Amino acid sequence: MHRTYNFSAGPAMLPTEVLQQAQAEMLDWHGCGMSIMEVSHRGPEFTQVMEQAEADLRALLAIPPNYHVLFLSSGATSQFSMVPLNLLGANKSADYINTGQWSEKAIAEAKRYGTVNIAAHAEKTPLVHIPAQNHWKLNANAAYVHYTPNETIDGVEFHWIPKTGKVPLVADMSSTLLSRPIDVSAFGIIYAGAQKNIGPAGLTIVIIRDDLLQEPIAATPILYNYRIQAENKSCYNTPATYSWYLAGLVFAWLKKQGGLQVMAARNQGKADKLYKYIDGSDFYSNKVRVDSRSWMNVPFSLQNPELDKKFLAEAEQAGLMNLKGHRLVGGMRASIYNAMPEAGVDALIEFMKNFAGSNK
Amino acid sequence: MHRTYNFSAGPAMLPTEVLQQAQAEMLDWHGCGMSIMEVSHRGPEFTQVMEQAEADLRALLAIPPNYHVLFLSSGATSQFSMVPLNLLGANKSADYINTGQWSEKAIAEAKRYGTVNIAAHAEKTPLVHIPAQNHWKLNANAAYVHYTPNETIDGVEFHWIPKTGKVPLVADMSSTLLSRPIDVSAFGIIYAGAQKNIGPAGLTIVIIRDDLLQEPIAATPILYNYRIQAENKSCYNTPATYSWYLAGLVFAWLKKQGGLQVMAARNQGKADKLYKYIDGSDFYSNKVRVDSRSWMNVPFSLQNPELDKKFLAEAEQAGLMNLKGHRLVGGMRASIYNAMPEAGVDALIEFMKNFAGSNK
Repeated sequence: MHRTYNFSAGPAMLPTEVLQQAQAEMLDWHGCGMSIMEVSHRGPEFTQVMEQAEADLRALLAIPPNYHVLFLSSGATSQFSMVPLNLLGANKSADYINTGQWSEKAIAEAKRYGTVNIAAHAEKTPLVHIPAQNHWKLNANAAYVHYTPNETIDGVEFHWIPKTGKVPLVADMSSTLLSRPIDVSAFGIIYAGAQKNIGPAGLTIVIIRDDLLQEPIAATPILYNYRIQAENKSCYNTPATYSWYLAGLVFAWLKKQGGLQVMAARNQGKADKLYKYIDGSDFYSNKVRVDSRSWMNVPFSLQNPELDKKFLAEAEQAGLMNLKGHRLVGGMRASIYNAMPEAGVDALIEFMKNFAGSNK
Repeated sequence: MHRTYNFSAGPAMLPTEVLQQAQAEMLDWHGCGMSIMEVSHRGPEFTQVMEQAEADLRALLAIPPNYHVLFLSSGATSQFSMVPLNLLGANKSADYINTGQWSEKAIAEAKRYGTVNIAAHAEKTPLVHIPAQNHWKLNANAAYVHYTPNETIDGVEFHWIPKTGKVPLVADMSSTLLSRPIDVSAFGIIYAGAQKNIGPAGLTIVIIRDDLLQEPIAATPILYNYRIQAENKSCYNTPATYSWYLAGLVFAWLKKQGGLQVMAARNQGKADKLYKYIDGSDFYSNKVRVDSRSWMNVPFSLQNPELDKKFLAEAEQAGLMNLKGHRLVGGMRASIYNAMPEAGVDALIEFMKNFAGSNK
């Protein structure tokens, strides 16, 4: 088996052990003579998968009992619509924090359904950073406050939770959920596309407080109704069963690693090591202020961008894949989600050192 | 490897060869050192998968160039909303043909967006059947005509295509697409959830004629906009990449079998054999008129329903899984999609004979 270190921002690397288990069980799940993707979502085999996955996720995140956990088909972009459709109500407005491209997409979609107030946005100078909450302009009557705790493109992350009082806090945690423990009770809704820390693309996890299962606006498609999804335990229609199963394998793997405290220490350790090397180098740089740097996505630039292509080609030859930065910002980006082992970060730093040495 | 014959209505059996290929490639797709589920949907590996899958589907169904092929996350239930959201327009009505439970779900959702005219419905006496089109009450000004060519629960199937003139014909082909050749040019939209003849649940194929990429009603969520999905080749957001890949493996498998003419002959052969045995038996019966019988889902009853439990338990011991009928109709149901080999149908008939002999 040939395996590389894959720094893709998403769909992203999954734990090798998880893929090996899926491989072993592909044609015959637990001796039933069928793949888990071939069985009914209402049968005993998948019911077991479904319940175990939810129980493990609840345990990992210590999700309080007044929160529903939904496993919805489609990506987090569906939530850009579902949140305003279900929560905005008539004649209401919502507060959005704009910290990057993903925030902007959520904002653009919300504006189609009502009034959006941009309560704060990331600052670019002198370094990219998230402004402290005392600089925000929150509206006490907002239907909710939406923010994006981690932005994959600029590599900007909140290391604190905004305080929004009685206004429900909604978070797009696509690229950070399960990277560390979080206090779920501080949120009204947490959602996350699966393809970073959870499983394959096409699945979105929604954690929603039960008082937010409100009546959505009239034209809301039936599958975009949180209440109907919650009442039917995400099985109003056939869910993405195989993706749900794979997410369950990832949750079990996380428990085996020791849970989210262990993952947080590991993730912080990987990120610190990489930022430290970049900061100490005059060949590479990162433009994000230390307090706003992402543990998950580390963008960096070569001082001489003419070397970008050579860097990428040689990295690939060394088994370090998908380091190209997002087209909007250029340069490089190392996405180092849960599944990226410390050895992958070490290999990257070693490669960066050698490349810098040979190209000064 | 232990494999059974799985008669589940969906998620359903997949070809063993397809699962074996997915298994072999799980950790390292074509030597790239990554699983295909770990790579970017915009990278060279997945682009190749995506394009090959579409090309193979176009070849299998002889899809004309003025049709777009979409690979959307979520199940066919999403289309119950998307069709009226995109096609119904203001002050319009749509014609629906009600031939069973799936038609009814589509109708219930369409009614939320406008006027629905039930132009025809399946008759129950003396046997379940689809009325000929000269008994339908179509509206020449309808925005579209929607029907369900195969109903999985009652096992009722159209073996002809309705003629709707200039009114676009929309078909929920979830349980019949790829079971036989079809004349795509007779349709405005064909859609199908993947979990019967295509791949894993959570993926829906939409084949849409380009003049139907209209402006949807204002509140339509961005991912429910056919035009945006078509313009972005189903990649406005991250699609369900692994499901798309698996669908591609199924398409390649179908081509290897000889295409849809071969599959049609095989499917008709399997169905005829099973119906013939049922009709010749006084122990089992099927309530659907011969001209409306499904090739894909064969419901049957035991004359003595007290034997149902025993039948199911002994069938399972014989490796014949998931034969229980839908809770709404009871009895038994054998779903015999493309992936069910003739040997599976033979094994079922043999078991039914033996069971009848021992329980008369």
